[in-house]
Amino acid sequence: MKIIIIGATGTIGKHVTAALAQDHEIIKAGSKSGDFNVDISSVESIEAFYKQVGKFDSLVCVSGDGHFGPLGSMKEAHFRVGINSKLMGQVNLVLIGQHYINHKGSFTLTSGSLAEDPIILGTNLSAMNGAINGFVRGAAVELENALRINAVAPDVVEESPIYFPYFPRHIPVTMNSVTQAYLRSVLGGQTGQVYKVSNH
Amino acid sequence: MKIIIIGATGTIGKHVTAALAQDHEIIKAGSKSGDFNVDISSVESIEAFYKQVGKFDSLVCVSGDGHFGPLGSMKEAHFRVGINSKLMGQVNLVLIGQHYINHKGSFTLTSGSLAEDPIILGTNLSAMNGAINGFVRGAAVELENALRINAVAPDVVEESPIYFPYFPRHIPVTMNSVTQAYLRSVLGGQTGQVYKVSNH
Repeated sequence: MKIIIIGATGTIGKHVTAALAQDHEIIKAGSKSGDFNVDISSVESIEAFYKQVGKFDSLVCVSGDGHFGPLGSMKEAHFRVGINSKLMGQVNLVLIGQHYINHKGSFTLTSGSLAEDPIILGTNLSAMNGAINGFVRGAAVELENALRINAVAPDVVEESPIYFPYFPRHIPVTMNSVTQAYLRSVLGGQTGQVYKVSNH
Repeated sequence: MKIIIIGATGTIGKHVTAALAQDHEIIKAGSKSGDFNVDISSVESIEAFYKQVGKFDSLVCVSGDGHFGPLGSMKEAHFRVGINSKLMGQVNLVLIGQHYINHKGSFTLTSGSLAEDPIILGTNLSAMNGAINGFVRGAAVELENALRINAVAPDVVEESPIYFPYFPRHIPVTMNSVTQAYLRSVLGGQTGQVYKVSNH
């Protein structure tokens, strides 16, 4: 398969890329690195990216920012960070990408455990993750051409120790367990699933 | 208690209003009707509304639009309808309202069954409902002054027959069961809950 990975050089992305590269053609994309640059917060950038890459079989997005900060001083502009990047970026990759992807292709997006297991400072990401989970469930019942769509919802990962203090007593998930969840989506047959990766 | 109901004259709102009005002071608000007009898609309108109303004990929002339409032709602008109204409108009611609400007050927002039980044409609302569920879970762990926040997630309601064709074989929920879910949030002690109202 020809597989696009958005965020291919990131903490999770590099593992997913390495695992899929064994048997597949990988198109690495990122905001500043990879074979192609794409700014997922921009519809124009996404359109240009797909035109360059051409037809493909699978897209994995492990990219997208959210706002991390206290609710007590949160303003709309803070909340819009996650909307414009993690949510709308991934949604636009699908809304536009559905017109470029091959028959029986798949989209695999990234949400996160905060949708259901919140932490202090994480309200924006809880909302964005919940939105992505809802989006994949909704899109799954409408995508044509036997396309599939799933999300992976990881807890804090073992290779991101800078986040450990914000996830008190969370047992970080292994990179292998997270990687396998992405591969289940890409290589499996299910659609509309949220693959939760958590030790809780 | 002094209870604000946004969307007080709507299909659900009028029932919640009638039930709470027996024992409480109700401030009815809506985009075009009620004691006060407020456009929840506008931060300025929400700020002005809270300044007029002053301190209050509970807010119930049963208002907010989403986009209803096919995924295959969906564009970012369609998706932003739900973001700007149902999601950001309710989020802003909380982000701003947390500075006006009394100690031990509560916010009760409206999501919907589509977050987990999708229908054709409902992708935007599935995403928005999931976002609201994530938001209330996230906000619940941070709200100060013993404030509470919950969401009610109704399936299609018996008094909205216009929507029945879009919810094939859903058994519409009674107005009483939906109303009681809002009352559980307002009058109960829980926070961070999503009260699902569905016959499935």
